[in-house]
Amino acid sequence: MYIDLNADLGESFGNYKIGNDEAIIPLITSANIACGMHAGDFNVLNQTIELCKAHGTGIGAHPGYPDLQGFGRRNLDMSNDEVEHLVTYQLGAIDAFCKKHGVKLNHVKPHGALYNATSGNEGLANAIVNAIYNFNPELKVMGISGGTLVKTAEAKGMTAINEVFADRNYTDAGTLVSRKQSNAMIHDQQAAVEHVLRMVRDKQVKTETGKLIDLQADSICVHGDGPEALAFVKAIIEALNKEGIKIQTI
Amino acid sequence: MYIDLNADLGESFGNYKIGNDEAIIPLITSANIACGMHAGDFNVLNQTIELCKAHGTGIGAHPGYPDLQGFGRRNLDMSNDEVEHLVTYQLGAIDAFCKKHGVKLNHVKPHGALYNATSGNEGLANAIVNAIYNFNPELKVMGISGGTLVKTAEAKGMTAINEVFADRNYTDAGTLVSRKQSNAMIHDQQAAVEHVLRMVRDKQVKTETGKLIDLQADSICVHGDGPEALAFVKAIIEALNKEGIKIQTI
Amino acid sequence: MYIDLNADLGESFGNYKIGNDEAIIPLITSANIACGMHAGDFNVLNQTIELCKAHGTGIGAHPGYPDLQGFGRRNLDMSNDEVEHLVTYQLGAIDAFCKKHGVKLNHVKPHGALYNATSGNEGLANAIVNAIYNFNPELKVMGISGGTLVKTAEAKGMTAINEVFADRNYTDAGTLVSRKQSNAMIHDQQAAVEHVLRMVRDKQVKTETGKLIDLQADSICVHGDGPEALAFVKAIIEALNKEGIKIQTI
Amino acid sequence: MYIDLNADLGESFGNYKIGNDEAIIPLITSANIACGMHAGDFNVLNQTIELCKAHGTGIGAHPGYPDLQGFGRRNLDMSNDEVEHLVTYQLGAIDAFCKKHGVKLNHVKPHGALYNATSGNEGLANAIVNAIYNFNPELKVMGISGGTLVKTAEAKGMTAINEVFADRNYTDAGTLVSRKQSNAMIHDQQAAVEHVLRMVRDKQVKTETGKLIDLQADSICVHGDGPEALAFVKAIIEALNKEGIKIQTI
Repeated sequence: MYIDLNADLGESFGNYKIGNDEAIIPLITSANIACGMHAGDFNVLNQTIELCKAHGTGIGAHPGYPDLQGFGRRNLDMSNDEVEHLVTYQLGAIDAFCKKHGVKLNHVKPHGALYNATSGNEGLANAIVNAIYNFNPELKVMGISGGTLVKTAEAKGMTAINEVFADRNYTDAGTLVSRKQSNAMIHDQQAAVEHVLRMVRDKQVKTETGKLIDLQADSICVHGDGPEALAFVKAIIEALNKEGIKIQTI
Repeated sequence: MYIDLNADLGESFGNYKIGNDEAIIPLITSANIACGMHAGDFNVLNQTIELCKAHGTGIGAHPGYPDLQGFGRRNLDMSNDEVEHLVTYQLGAIDAFCKKHGVKLNHVKPHGALYNATSGNEGLANAIVNAIYNFNPELKVMGISGGTLVKTAEAKGMTAINEVFADRNYTDAGTLVSRKQSNAMIHDQQAAVEHVLRMVRDKQVKTETGKLIDLQADSICVHGDGPEALAFVKAIIEALNKEGIKIQTI
Repeated sequence: MYIDLNADLGESFGNYKIGNDEAIIPLITSANIACGMHAGDFNVLNQTIELCKAHGTGIGAHPGYPDLQGFGRRNLDMSNDEVEHLVTYQLGAIDAFCKKHGVKLNHVKPHGALYNATSGNEGLANAIVNAIYNFNPELKVMGISGGTLVKTAEAKGMTAINEVFADRNYTDAGTLVSRKQSNAMIHDQQAAVEHVLRMVRDKQVKTETGKLIDLQADSICVHGDGPEALAFVKAIIEALNKEGIKIQTI
Repeated sequence: MYIDLNADLGESFGNYKIGNDEAIIPLITSANIACGMHAGDFNVLNQTIELCKAHGTGIGAHPGYPDLQGFGRRNLDMSNDEVEHLVTYQLGAIDAFCKKHGVKLNHVKPHGALYNATSGNEGLANAIVNAIYNFNPELKVMGISGGTLVKTAEAKGMTAINEVFADRNYTDAGTLVSRKQSNAMIHDQQAAVEHVLRMVRDKQVKTETGKLIDLQADSICVHGDGPEALAFVKAIIEALNKEGIKIQTI
């Protein structure tokens, strides 16, 4: 039994530092690396790829909207064609650093508002998947488990990575409880560990109403900011290990 | 006998249009395409590569300083390491669009202040050449004829393109007369045509003092803005044709 | 009888030129000047204020979303608080150039997607109006005739400018026909002139269904790009003059 | 006897946090606040002005080059006219937030590379001083003690603030020891405290060669990042208090 652990990183910009990449990269198996549009820059990209290479961490592109101030979290009304070009641009940019360091780009996960906007939007999902396919059809496409993006990638014959969240509650429909609701997050570490084990081992999630529903979990999203987050990740890894579940890049 | 004709283009940005790319691309044999830092964006890149493909125009990256407001023409004090990453980033970005459209990136010519800053600066020239070499050692490096950049590329075993200017006067040292001097430019079309023929056919340039000196001309830089510029380019092409000099991508 | 003629301008950026400001500024009575977020920069602001001063043209701030690539025409999901700060920032910036040149800022008109987003959105309209009021309660607020923005300004005791469009058709509800419909624009010059006269003189508009409805017209929006646009503006001015309607800054 | 304590702050941007403004603002008497070009944004400006108002801290504009990635620390080759407009723009922007919160802008200190570039450059110093003067001649101009900027401001009849540095060594010429030299910084807290007292109380500085030279100290620059920096500032304040030197906004 296997599971992939992923985290968003490489988000520093110029003099601005975000995240704890040095600490989280050795723990996870897939890094979603910002590509210079919503976060990250050419210096940060170089350093982050180097760090992933040193730790054998799977390298992923994390393309986002061109909105540094909003950190790619604000909806931006771009046409599907524009989004296709936006993603193509960022894939090329990060891949150049992979080439330089002799490593391979493994997957792509859209960031923030772009990730969320694919939900139910086949035109947008197609634009993103086309950009990835045309760049390299071997790249894996990471999106929310069972969502429009992963389905679109699979329909194109690409490998999809169904992503689940270690610290987020789910609705009966298998979607995330909105962050606007008070029960969006799982704050208790033990509850989160059980939540993760259930998703990975049992391929199920207990929803906000207590119902058990099926859920495909190929990769778990964790966070690397701050000492608490790291302890959280370590607890999840320990629990997975104890269950004999191997943590490895998909 | 052969010569390459190059022009800077793909410099539009969002709603902002610059240049006359549709008219100049069919005339020239090498396009230096802005990569989104000093000019251009992901939409413009896509369109420009498409246009070059349609006309069989040689495709080149034209990386510049990250300074859209200054159009890459203002000196920006970046370390050599930063410049290397800056160029790597832009090479990857443009190459992704080449990949998408099934065409090859052929050459790289730094833009504006970055182009000029390599003069006599081996550290900077090395940073740029290393970025290009690590991305793809087959890429040709275009720089001012006989200058630090082309010498650095050749020392690394790469193919250099010695660039000369159709409308610029030269000093006895073989460098361009500074734009701060009144005789920097050749405004007369007939004089420019003779200047070009002398450089291509005789491998010589008549300097501002009237002296004839040797000069290697692999590619001639022309401009595409406005109807006058186009007439200028057409006159040069006609004169080269009359002399039996073939115009082709290097 | 009076009417104000306004146009959006000061939209150039660095090396990028947009519009025909030198030609349109002498013709109109209110300039909506970009403030450096969706278009314009500090050099362009300086030059544009100077030009308005020279021609006695009323000076207005034209604040937009911070999205240069999208020219402020893409919806950007900012909170109302953010928008309030965004507008405050741009008001201060443009006013500094007014101060420098000894002229007064007269009005404020939000740009593009921000202008449209106020429609029916009282929270957003309040954010914009508050920013303006706190900066200077004497500033006039320009918005679509009878829309949420002008109503919000009036409710706050400020002077509103009801804007109508010389080249746009209206629905029976008094709103603009969507640009997605084929009859959005009035392309015929004579029809536009009659449309303008009816709005100014009769305070009515003939809608897309041929119905006559009441409409308050304090200022007419015209465009300054290209020789055709200028001819259009001149025809409108001539027709207004002939009717004895004075064109002046509100 | 009086002295002013100043620090650079308001440097966060979007999701990126820099500095410890909440802790340092109550301790200092003059805040140099980034204006959105090299750092800071409209939301951060609003929050920082609010914080300064709450603590009665003197508010200063800290305009820098338009280079967020370089944090305004990279030389950028702008003309003097461009710099004048750049400063005008930023003064207006920050002042709009002062207006909103009912506080006064007190001083202006150029940031980073722009601050350093004024040294010996009268044209540049004039551009900056003109921008400030035209915006508000009552504003005080902060620059390195005895440098070109403060002299230029005084020549224009403005109030200059001679700035000295708590943690920097000085040459016999009264300039800062270059950061490229190993003895640029004073790392020892006690040494720094004595250094400060000597500058404030005795109006002298002990140079790197041990010589005592005269130096005008109107304001001391301190840093607010990290708990060590805060302890440093508190030690300086304590020492000044013990000597009966009052700390207050100039």
